[in-house]
Amino acid sequence: MKYKPINFQEKLSKFQDQWSPKVIAEMNDYQFKLVKVQGDFVWHKHDETDEVFIVIGGNLIIEFRDGEVKLNEGEMFVIPKNVEHKPYAEAECKILLVEPKGVVNTGQEITDQTAENDVWI
Amino acid sequence: MKYKPINFQEKLSKFQDQWSPKVIAEMNDYQFKLVKVQGDFVWHKHDETDEVFIVIGGNLIIEFRDGEVKLNEGEMFVIPKNVEHKPYAEAECKILLVEPKGVVNTGQEITDQTAENDVWI
Repeated sequence: MKYKPINFQEKLSKFQDQWSPKVIAEMNDYQFKLVKVQGDFVWHKHDETDEVFIVIGGNLIIEFRDGEVKLNEGEMFVIPKNVEHKPYAEAECKILLVEPKGVVNTGQEITDQTAENDVWI
Repeated sequence: MKYKPINFQEKLSKFQDQWSPKVIAEMNDYQFKLVKVQGDFVWHKHDETDEVFIVIGGNLIIEFRDGEVKLNEGEMFVIPKNVEHKPYAEAECKILLVEPKGVVNTGQEITDQTAENDVWI
């Protein structure tokens, strides 16, 4: 049987829209999602789960109510559950997200940045 | 408050031993581990969980009983639970593993490649 790797750049080339995570893999009940972001996102939190950001390309700032973290390519950060955060990227940034299946990108906030879940590429 | 990103290259520079995963982050009850590998690993499987390999540097072959997958930098693969596999790398390869806390690297096989768990760097 022939097995196929999941290539981040190939998957990233398949979509252009921002703030709309695309699922590329599932492990148990967790999903790996690629997303392109630019500009400001909405302040939100996830009550039930931590969330992992891994920067694949570009630079990302994640603001917290009491500080911020700057992520470059090849860096990751774990947002603890129930902690308010707001991602921001000056130029387009490509991110690999890891979180349980079913997590809504805007958490408890439903805005025009709220994306459909379970969109596979 | 100042938050610090987790930088893969900085973490990789902190150890030289192979086949011995080092924990760099936890998300819920999952761990992110960096590991350096070269040569052949033991055939094994994980009865209770899928396992994610993300190649950070180099090339990796994961053999299955009925085929294999070749992973380059920037590629990932999900090993389904209960599927026998054997990683192999001709030259040293750097990998980010994602799996539940407590998973033993050699699965049900206890060999001299069995590594201690929960070693943080």
